[in-house]
Amino acid sequence: MSGYAAPLEDIRFALEHIGGLGDLAALEPFKHAEPDLVSAVLDEGARFVQDLIAPLNRSGDVEGSTLVDGQVHTPSGFKEAYKAYVNAGWGGIDAPAEWGGHGMPRVVGVAFEEIFTSANLAFSNCPLLTAGGVNALTAHGTTEQQDRYLPKLITGEWSAAMNLTEPHAGSDVGALSMRAVPANDGTYRLTGTKIFITYGDHDMAANVVHLVLARVTGSPSGTRGISMFVVPKYLPDDNDEPGVANDVKVVSLEHKLGIKASPTCVMAFGEDSGGAVGFLLGGLNQGMRNMFTMMNTARISVAIQGMAVAERAYQQAAAFARERRQGRAVGAAETSPIVDHPDVRRMLLTMRSNTEAMRALLYRAAMHQDLAEHAGADRERRWHSNCLALLTPVVKTWCTDLGVEVASVGIQVHGGMGYIEETGAAQHWRDARITPIYEGTNGIQSIDLVMRKVPIDGGRFVTGYIESLRSPVAHLREIGWERAADSLSEALRALSDATSYLLSEADDPNQRLAGASPYCTMFGIVAGGAMMAEAAVAAHRTYESSKQVTSRFYLEQILPTAGGLLPAIKAGAADLFALDAASL
Amino acid sequence: MSGYAAPLEDIRFALEHIGGLGDLAALEPFKHAEPDLVSAVLDEGARFVQDLIAPLNRSGDVEGSTLVDGQVHTPSGFKEAYKAYVNAGWGGIDAPAEWGGHGMPRVVGVAFEEIFTSANLAFSNCPLLTAGGVNALTAHGTTEQQDRYLPKLITGEWSAAMNLTEPHAGSDVGALSMRAVPANDGTYRLTGTKIFITYGDHDMAANVVHLVLARVTGSPSGTRGISMFVVPKYLPDDNDEPGVANDVKVVSLEHKLGIKASPTCVMAFGEDSGGAVGFLLGGLNQGMRNMFTMMNTARISVAIQGMAVAERAYQQAAAFARERRQGRAVGAAETSPIVDHPDVRRMLLTMRSNTEAMRALLYRAAMHQDLAEHAGADRERRWHSNCLALLTPVVKTWCTDLGVEVASVGIQVHGGMGYIEETGAAQHWRDARITPIYEGTNGIQSIDLVMRKVPIDGGRFVTGYIESLRSPVAHLREIGWERAADSLSEALRALSDATSYLLSEADDPNQRLAGASPYCTMFGIVAGGAMMAEAAVAAHRTYESSKQVTSRFYLEQILPTAGGLLPAIKAGAADLFALDAASL
Repeated sequence: MSGYAAPLEDIRFALEHIGGLGDLAALEPFKHAEPDLVSAVLDEGARFVQDLIAPLNRSGDVEGSTLVDGQVHTPSGFKEAYKAYVNAGWGGIDAPAEWGGHGMPRVVGVAFEEIFTSANLAFSNCPLLTAGGVNALTAHGTTEQQDRYLPKLITGEWSAAMNLTEPHAGSDVGALSMRAVPANDGTYRLTGTKIFITYGDHDMAANVVHLVLARVTGSPSGTRGISMFVVPKYLPDDNDEPGVANDVKVVSLEHKLGIKASPTCVMAFGEDSGGAVGFLLGGLNQGMRNMFTMMNTARISVAIQGMAVAERAYQQAAAFARERRQGRAVGAAETSPIVDHPDVRRMLLTMRSNTEAMRALLYRAAMHQDLAEHAGADRERRWHSNCLALLTPVVKTWCTDLGVEVASVGIQVHGGMGYIEETGAAQHWRDARITPIYEGTNGIQSIDLVMRKVPIDGGRFVTGYIESLRSPVAHLREIGWERAADSLSEALRALSDATSYLLSEADDPNQRLAGASPYCTMFGIVAGGAMMAEAAVAAHRTYESSKQVTSRFYLEQILPTAGGLLPAIKAGAADLFALDAASL
Repeated sequence: MSGYAAPLEDIRFALEHIGGLGDLAALEPFKHAEPDLVSAVLDEGARFVQDLIAPLNRSGDVEGSTLVDGQVHTPSGFKEAYKAYVNAGWGGIDAPAEWGGHGMPRVVGVAFEEIFTSANLAFSNCPLLTAGGVNALTAHGTTEQQDRYLPKLITGEWSAAMNLTEPHAGSDVGALSMRAVPANDGTYRLTGTKIFITYGDHDMAANVVHLVLARVTGSPSGTRGISMFVVPKYLPDDNDEPGVANDVKVVSLEHKLGIKASPTCVMAFGEDSGGAVGFLLGGLNQGMRNMFTMMNTARISVAIQGMAVAERAYQQAAAFARERRQGRAVGAAETSPIVDHPDVRRMLLTMRSNTEAMRALLYRAAMHQDLAEHAGADRERRWHSNCLALLTPVVKTWCTDLGVEVASVGIQVHGGMGYIEETGAAQHWRDARITPIYEGTNGIQSIDLVMRKVPIDGGRFVTGYIESLRSPVAHLREIGWERAADSLSEALRALSDATSYLLSEADDPNQRLAGASPYCTMFGIVAGGAMMAEAAVAAHRTYESSKQVTSRFYLEQILPTAGGLLPAIKAGAADLFALDAASL
């Protein structure tokens, strides 16, 4: 039951028809990313993750990571699989060629990230965090820092970890109390404790490069006084090999609901020596900017986790439903496989069409990222950059909430067996449950959407973006899909209505905040619907019959739920605050 | 964080204004159930569960039940707490006085069941199963069987277990292969294996009375040839004390996602001696009828579990949100408790208003049960009996799906702490996840609703029932709640539309089955809305300010989501079957 086969057909469809791979390959920096080559790379990647990474998913959950004498041990097989990952060069697909990456478009990186994550969510967190470090160093590091760390992080020989959260500074990063004191040699000495540090230590890479937020003595309080430091577990020696151990310790591991193979560490810095050695990254008090560089990509990656776990849960549920026999379907002469029962079909199609909609919107977001960096015209780059900024909180929220929901349906398909841990269906659901929480809770994402993204250009950008989602309506009508077209049109009307409301409440933040979460969810359902409409039109043209079914199912049966969120979005804050806290 | 305080104020409100306790107490059999007495009983019950049962919830999860030398051991403290429960007489609140019960209305029994279950879901399964046995014996037992078993089951000295499921006979009970062979003395010898037997063995009661479905040699295949047997763990001796051990063995315990303290047993009957001794209950081949007697009440009890775990998750989340400080609320001068953030308020009000809506519909269902048995006029009894039959699959599905969802929101309120098992929020979510599965999966409930309940009296009953939910619309308008009235009116229109569609497709079962699940969900949301409307009107009259807020929130912000399910209900089966099973 633990098998996983990369859904290469749908991935290719999404790359071609939604992710714009053909157009990207026409750009100078991506001219090597021809669809045939990309396809071959993904074939090879699929074999790799299916053979080496996917089989460790369940055993990793059972065994978990452990802390022994201050060193984190990952579950059996993880070290070997990680080594194979590094050796095969999977770490650098979309990393800059300058430091040893393959320089593929981000959308191709996302495709590999998807299958790697479906294979083993807990395992995939290690490269995810490393990619965050790569992004921070690429954007903000000195040449010396880049030359020292990037090649090893891109291959994965070394991994990175983000050290942001403290016991009293979670969503409110500005409240952190980690201290950094300048030393005489230009370096800093860091002291304090960080919690919830994913892969803060482990035995798969030769070094762990911590990106740490701290406040330098004399810096302002709040977010304006935060700086970011590179704090390696082992200080690189003159040959850039791991040298002297830094004063960085794992105090304990959390006992979590899921992703048990992914070690979640409490980290102590500078406890023994009066300070861990840290190197300032990207300027004094520039920590928040650096953090968002790391975090925005990580938010997309967590959204991918939601989709990827949904895909895996779907595959397992579909396989079970084809095998398990129970009851007679209407008109059947003997006991039927449960896949023949309408309600089981509904569960499977709900799982699958939602997963495909998430994939589509995520690949589109990745395309925006590629074009934000590489499109020819300034105005075009700015458009795509805004699209990515807008979609980041949307996909993070929508895909992670939906990942949990799809995994829950996966349990339900299994009936009583779904509640037994050996089946593995429950693990997907437990694993998925972290995704609406980490890299900024979904509540924080929704606040980001309504307070920072919707107001871009005084609301003209978001209005134009929603308008751009309307074009598939006409295309659906051209192929005769009237009901689907009506459904998308109506959903877009609700989204426009909600957006206008939020823009009209510009002066009252509590009114906007009150509607933030349902708005963010509605945005995801509707933007996903627009992607499924584009997919439907392409599938109609290319005679892809499965996609026509899943897109029609989404458009006609799932998308209509979006409108029901409108009253909550527009209800305002009054009833939320009608009871005092003690009466709640 | 593991504390629980019974929500006595809302329970009293629901008993008075929704559950009709006043009217019930006017009936002859319930004349002792005066509201003041009931209130005192519930006060006492609350103290009992808060002091003795609730504190074992988290420790029970950590320790779990274990199987040692063929005997199930419940977690530390369970035996002692159960003994106290038996001694205090909590087992028989709504059981017939004839055999030692207190003869209270079912609605009072439900109130106690709620708080007992909130205190400890895994623990509460033992009395839940016993109540099923009491119902089966009360309805179908011989006087001798009743006299022998009922007094001990009602106190809880002995417990009962339902043995229905086999490896290849889950939802399809008729496929079972357990055999019963008549012996010379009128008893039977049973052989076979049962799985997923909740509290199939344990160390809290002196005897376990198994109600076992099996097929007597020569009986027809399928459901028509199933009989029910009483198979005690220890055969009662002449003094009705546990005597000789029967040939009933626990083979293993399941390793489950949640309710870890509740032992889920694989049971082997008759393995050593060629047959466990069983006593036919209620006539040859009458097993299915008996099963539904047990199961219909158990389905309501599982619905109560969904609501009860939601209540507990809500209390924990609200307490956390009042304590945890993070970020500044709009206009705040310093760090605020997170309860001051609009999005956290939305989460808490969503949890609470949904929980109160579930409570209301469940207490109303219990009232229907009381009046189905005790109302004066035949016609009235028949109306209430039909209401109960209709609402049983609705509450089972709606309350259990929603219980999982509310517990998930509870995790989210805790942020990163919610994912750490020590916090306890995750346990509620894991525990709740069994409820959409057992006692008939929610898919089975939905089929029951559209195939058996909607067609009652050719659809005239359900149409009349929905019409009866319309009366609060006018009452809402009388108190000036126009928006809430519009919302309820629109939701009822959608429910009527869906119902008419299902009735119009009477000839095509697959069309009805295709819409069954979203219909069942819609029915729950809307019926819950009608209850909240009644609550709103009562709260307005009695100046209950909290209830006015939660009911308005439900009516204006949650109820509108129901309409979005209509397209899925009416979409038909074609798209569900457009792909062949292999392509899914």
